Amino acid sequence: MINQELFFEPKISASHIEEAYEALYRQMKSDDVGYYKLPEGEIVSKIDSFCKKDEVKDIKKIAVIGIGGSSLGTRAVDTLLMHTKHRNEKELLFFENVDPIEIENVIKNIVFDETLFIVISKSGSTIETTSHLKYILNYFDIEIGDEKFRSHFVTITDRGSPLDKFSEKFGLECFHIPLNVGGRFSVFSAVGLLPLSLLGYDIKEILSGAKEIRDSFFEKKENPLVQKAHYYVSHSSYLPINVLFSYASAFRAFNDWYVQLWGESLGKVNKRGENCGLTPIGIIGSIDQHSFLQLLIEGPRDKTVTMIKVKDFQKDLKIPHISLKFLESTDFINGHTFNELINAQCDATMQSILDQGISVDLIEIDRLHEKSVGYMIFYYELLTSLCGYFLGIDTYDQPGVELGKRILKEKFAK
Amino acid sequence: MINQELFFEPKISASHIEEAYEALYRQMKSDDVGYYKLPEGEIVSKIDSFCKKDEVKDIKKIAVIGIGGSSLGTRAVDTLLMHTKHRNEKELLFFENVDPIEIENVIKNIVFDETLFIVISKSGSTIETTSHLKYILNYFDIEIGDEKFRSHFVTITDRGSPLDKFSEKFGLECFHIPLNVGGRFSVFSAVGLLPLSLLGYDIKEILSGAKEIRDSFFEKKENPLVQKAHYYVSHSSYLPINVLFSYASAFRAFNDWYVQLWGESLGKVNKRGENCGLTPIGIIGSIDQHSFLQLLIEGPRDKTVTMIKVKDFQKDLKIPHISLKFLESTDFINGHTFNELINAQCDATMQSILDQGISVDLIEIDRLHEKSVGYMIFYYELLTSLCGYFLGIDTYDQPGVELGKRILKEKFAK
Repeated sequence: MINQELFFEPKISASHIEEAYEALYRQMKSDDVGYYKLPEGEIVSKIDSFCKKDEVKDIKKIAVIGIGGSSLGTRAVDTLLMHTKHRNEKELLFFENVDPIEIENVIKNIVFDETLFIVISKSGSTIETTSHLKYILNYFDIEIGDEKFRSHFVTITDRGSPLDKFSEKFGLECFHIPLNVGGRFSVFSAVGLLPLSLLGYDIKEILSGAKEIRDSFFEKKENPLVQKAHYYVSHSSYLPINVLFSYASAFRAFNDWYVQLWGESLGKVNKRGENCGLTPIGIIGSIDQHSFLQLLIEGPRDKTVTMIKVKDFQKDLKIPHISLKFLESTDFINGHTFNELINAQCDATMQSILDQGISVDLIEIDRLHEKSVGYMIFYYELLTSLCGYFLGIDTYDQPGVELGKRILKEKFAK
Repeated sequence: MINQELFFEPKISASHIEEAYEALYRQMKSDDVGYYKLPEGEIVSKIDSFCKKDEVKDIKKIAVIGIGGSSLGTRAVDTLLMHTKHRNEKELLFFENVDPIEIENVIKNIVFDETLFIVISKSGSTIETTSHLKYILNYFDIEIGDEKFRSHFVTITDRGSPLDKFSEKFGLECFHIPLNVGGRFSVFSAVGLLPLSLLGYDIKEILSGAKEIRDSFFEKKENPLVQKAHYYVSHSSYLPINVLFSYASAFRAFNDWYVQLWGESLGKVNKRGENCGLTPIGIIGSIDQHSFLQLLIEGPRDKTVTMIKVKDFQKDLKIPHISLKFLESTDFINGHTFNELINAQCDATMQSILDQGISVDLIEIDRLHEKSVGYMIFYYELLTSLCGYFLGIDTYDQPGVELGKRILKEKFAK
């Protein structure tokens, strides 16, 4: 389903690999880190019941009110899979940024009676999310606690959070995020699974893909994953940037999700008080061959590159046998499919990067479907956990964002 | 209209500043570098005549067939301005990536008779662009050279290029890109101005904004711009990453345009054979406070940060005076506008980054309109030219992308 290949020489001993497996195993067993258990799908039956309700079936638009870990995972999976067979016609909208232009654009397309609003906040008091919620309640003149409110709003938050208590008081259906699952690792909780299930995706298949790589990892069959993480971290002082070069437009939101996962998990002060981390950059091929590639090839040697390639796009679009006068130099591609062209570009670009002596690895995905996407997401979560382990940091907190929140409150308190 | 402030101590002598002004002045005068003269708007009258044609007025969709410098600038300007008063209802589409899923998504929404296709390629033989063109011709069963072809296709390319010759032979209207203007610097040529004019924008106003900063620069009134470029370059060995943190969703495509401009212009082997450059990263506030900010605050000290702030979004959306039970801790924002909230977040985030001792500068834009957007684009082009000058590289070529193209051709020749 998915193959990976490392085009650099990993230098890690068998015993260090063993230690890394065991470190993550301890995280899982200790219950400090909850995402490892999400592929079990404990929440699935509750989601299934919810989605079967009559009033839910009639919903035409799903509006996620959430930001960061509450929106990026859902968007990543939906963008990867929206061309596939299970996706229904429901529209997915986001209230995400507190940008008034964006809010106006989104809300003007909403017909309240056709819309389910999913309010997502792990802490339960994210200022962007509560501000959007208040604006929406006022805009559509909704009375809190009445039938219209209860049938069009649902919440996802930590048990015991302010939003959880609010939901309980006013009779809102509420899904809980396990307390030991951080926002950026929460796509396989209700945070991702509820909207994705409403969009028609087979969430059990998504989870089965996640489970496959997780089990394979804990059976100690994923040495290249450990080797890659170790290579990134041991070279981080002079290769501080990781570039994810995805050859399919469908990966755009996945790249964003990866940037959050990587940046927020690994950008940390370690126990010795040192600023460490790896800087993630997501780019799309072939588009960014006309942009970022020049920098990769001739710029500073401070980057590793992961290429993502989709073998079979399941679309048989051909470049026709048309020879245009004066443009005959482009005829070499006639009769081939766009699928062949984009993959040949991926290969050619990878070759030209390798020729520079840059550290490259390749992830090849046979086809995009629920299972392979679940696999990819969990693969990156494991990779992140491994990098955090090798960096010797707490991968799962985010203390650096608190100061800004405090300054914001102080500004308005004045 | 636009203010900038540097929160770091520039260290460059008056004579070095003078030399930088003169270096760019020489580039302009030598005619090697053509973008400096684009604000004169030589192409505007030809665009005006074209847009006044009856058959053009009836167009409902504009499909740009182009990639990289042929698409990013138009997308950047349109995304920044699409909420403003001049934008008409025409739909703007792109045939950009050679991704079959994307192509299918775009083409299925096209009604041929309502669509103008703008084929853009500076070299005139970009493989993505010609492949799209052939696919479209075949899909809609268009006979090259007949009336339907000539009235629905227009080209933009270098004089004498294969696409130019093709256009001439088959009677297509063709706009020329000045030979001394590179793709990524071409947004103020027909490449950007033709589609933008068709979308209703006042392109003379766009150019007037560009002219304002250009003239101010060549009157030597833009010392902070020179100081900033010098600071970036003189610190590039330990601050190799420039982060553009734009506090408005409308900057998303501008960020992409900046990444291309910066990456492809500055990622170069210099005369001494050294790989140099500065790595650009574009992020959006407040969204990326929930993602990349943690890395900025606690990660490696290898980044400079430019904050972009829009003072007046011209949207009076308020967070209503609703106090939600258990969520009272978020009431401090009640009664304020989203405009105030996002800008207060920008200020708070900037403060928290500054507190870490990170080099920050701020660009404050009064309002988004044609003139300020033209100014911003040209500001970044000048900044790029200055960085290239201080790096001692050729800012305007892109030799690093040629190898991949050759390998691609060889793959299919086999």
